[in-house]
Amino acid sequence: MIDRLISKIESLESPIVVGLDPMLEYVPEHILEQSYQEKGETLEGAAEAIWQYNKGIIDATYDLIPAVKPQVAMYEQFGIEGLKVFKQTVDYAKEKGLIVIGDIKRGDIGSTSAAYATGHLGKVTIAGKTYRGFDEDFITVNPYLGSDGILPFIKVCQEESKGLFILVKTSNPSSNEFQDQLIERKPLYELVGKKVAEWGERHMGASYSQIGAVVGATYPEIGKTLRSLMPKTYFLVPGYGAQGGKAEDLVHYFNKDGLGAIVNSSRGIIAAYKQKGYETFGSKNYADASRQAVINMKEDIKNALGSL
Amino acid sequence: MIDRLISKIESLESPIVVGLDPMLEYVPEHILEQSYQEKGETLEGAAEAIWQYNKGIIDATYDLIPAVKPQVAMYEQFGIEGLKVFKQTVDYAKEKGLIVIGDIKRGDIGSTSAAYATGHLGKVTIAGKTYRGFDEDFITVNPYLGSDGILPFIKVCQEESKGLFILVKTSNPSSNEFQDQLIERKPLYELVGKKVAEWGERHMGASYSQIGAVVGATYPEIGKTLRSLMPKTYFLVPGYGAQGGKAEDLVHYFNKDGLGAIVNSSRGIIAAYKQKGYETFGSKNYADASRQAVINMKEDIKNALGSL
Repeated sequence: MIDRLISKIESLESPIVVGLDPMLEYVPEHILEQSYQEKGETLEGAAEAIWQYNKGIIDATYDLIPAVKPQVAMYEQFGIEGLKVFKQTVDYAKEKGLIVIGDIKRGDIGSTSAAYATGHLGKVTIAGKTYRGFDEDFITVNPYLGSDGILPFIKVCQEESKGLFILVKTSNPSSNEFQDQLIERKPLYELVGKKVAEWGERHMGASYSQIGAVVGATYPEIGKTLRSLMPKTYFLVPGYGAQGGKAEDLVHYFNKDGLGAIVNSSRGIIAAYKQKGYETFGSKNYADASRQAVINMKEDIKNALGSL
Repeated sequence: MIDRLISKIESLESPIVVGLDPMLEYVPEHILEQSYQEKGETLEGAAEAIWQYNKGIIDATYDLIPAVKPQVAMYEQFGIEGLKVFKQTVDYAKEKGLIVIGDIKRGDIGSTSAAYATGHLGKVTIAGKTYRGFDEDFITVNPYLGSDGILPFIKVCQEESKGLFILVKTSNPSSNEFQDQLIERKPLYELVGKKVAEWGERHMGASYSQIGAVVGATYPEIGKTLRSLMPKTYFLVPGYGAQGGKAEDLVHYFNKDGLGAIVNSSRGIIAAYKQKGYETFGSKNYADASRQAVINMKEDIKNALGSL
């Protein structure tokens, strides 16, 4: 799957992923109204609104981007109805040729990690027949429980030719509380990074591992260090835009081959119409605003990478 | 919610929680057959079988135990149909007066953690009306992202009088890879433990915090250290039984008041009928075997605690 991702990044010249993290407050009034009219002012109605909103964004951007990253929490907050729309979004994005990174940050041990892997990447066997639960292409995973928590995911990735992005250094301000603590004079994120690279050797693509890392855009020096520490690991980079990460800071997240990182933007794309510079689109044309924001982001990163 | 949990633990003399972590291979043949007949050899049929199996166990044990802990991964592996049964199980257990600890090990940052908290503990507002997603009483949470990841959960807990159990030291063999690493000569789990105690001060019950910790049964010396380090934090203790944790090892997980820990057993209870000592029940009476296993576990822990 990493090879498919890389090939799409190369052909589209677009190392970016759109985070489908819908909040109800982002959804334009006309979509809310129609959804509530059809399905009621209920969990179902809200989920329908999220779905229509997502569909609009996917339709307006799928030809420009290699992948989307739906954040499952934003769906899970609406219970079952929300999760149905998560699944619908995964399926629709795949139909449109997009690679889907399920941002689920799961993590447990043994048979429990195996069950998550089954539900999100693999298949379950019922009376001899196989079925798929959510069926994303990649998922994000939390490493706090160590190898016991990760290897069951890798096993399913091997069977299904799919991949992971494991949290190494996250983009938030308090990520330093544990991740930056020094262990034999090296921060914990380096230890986790080394481990991710080691796990990654078990499941290599052509030039990069199927097992990637999440490395936040907001700590460029750390991104640079981790880049040199784990040359064959693809980085999924959150924190660009809304969280403050800038394109010029991201240059060192890439290798000399121009590859090695895929940069996520969520709010900055999906709620572009609410932001400075995109007001003229208006809420009815929210999806066009998202398309323009993707074009601008692509340009921004391309310019920054020009210096590679 | 911690006060309700403690009061139930005291009145039942039962510091134990049954982990509802159903695997299809645990479900007795007669339940599988009937469920497949009714709903097909499909995700729906499998989910129905899991539901009937859970219901049997809850009916046979609810008067002996304060709480159940459904592990969401075991439901998530069946996709939407599985999650419907997770919700059904949460609701039914609450109807029976049980406290429900959703073992979901979620963790993200900011609005994403807030969305998980909303979905699992709180309520979402749709056009002025409020709805609840999964509505557990407690959930488990992963601390790797630091305060930004935890505080949004605590906020919802405060609003809803609910609680958390945050991973500190897990029961699995490789938990040492990161959790035991020394930071200024103290292991990471101590740093996390101290932080959990600190977070816990924001949301206290009468004598214990609403913010608890997950501390595995398989490292008794560590349990003892953490007990003294975080006296007002309730411990959720996995790893008893199947994973090798013994009752006598758990004595120091409790405070002198006889409180401070609730011990989980999953497979050892729910699949008791498949285990040595319970063969005579037979698969038709699997729930009676589970009841007997609860009685035995209660006795085992009571005897061990006698030495307190």
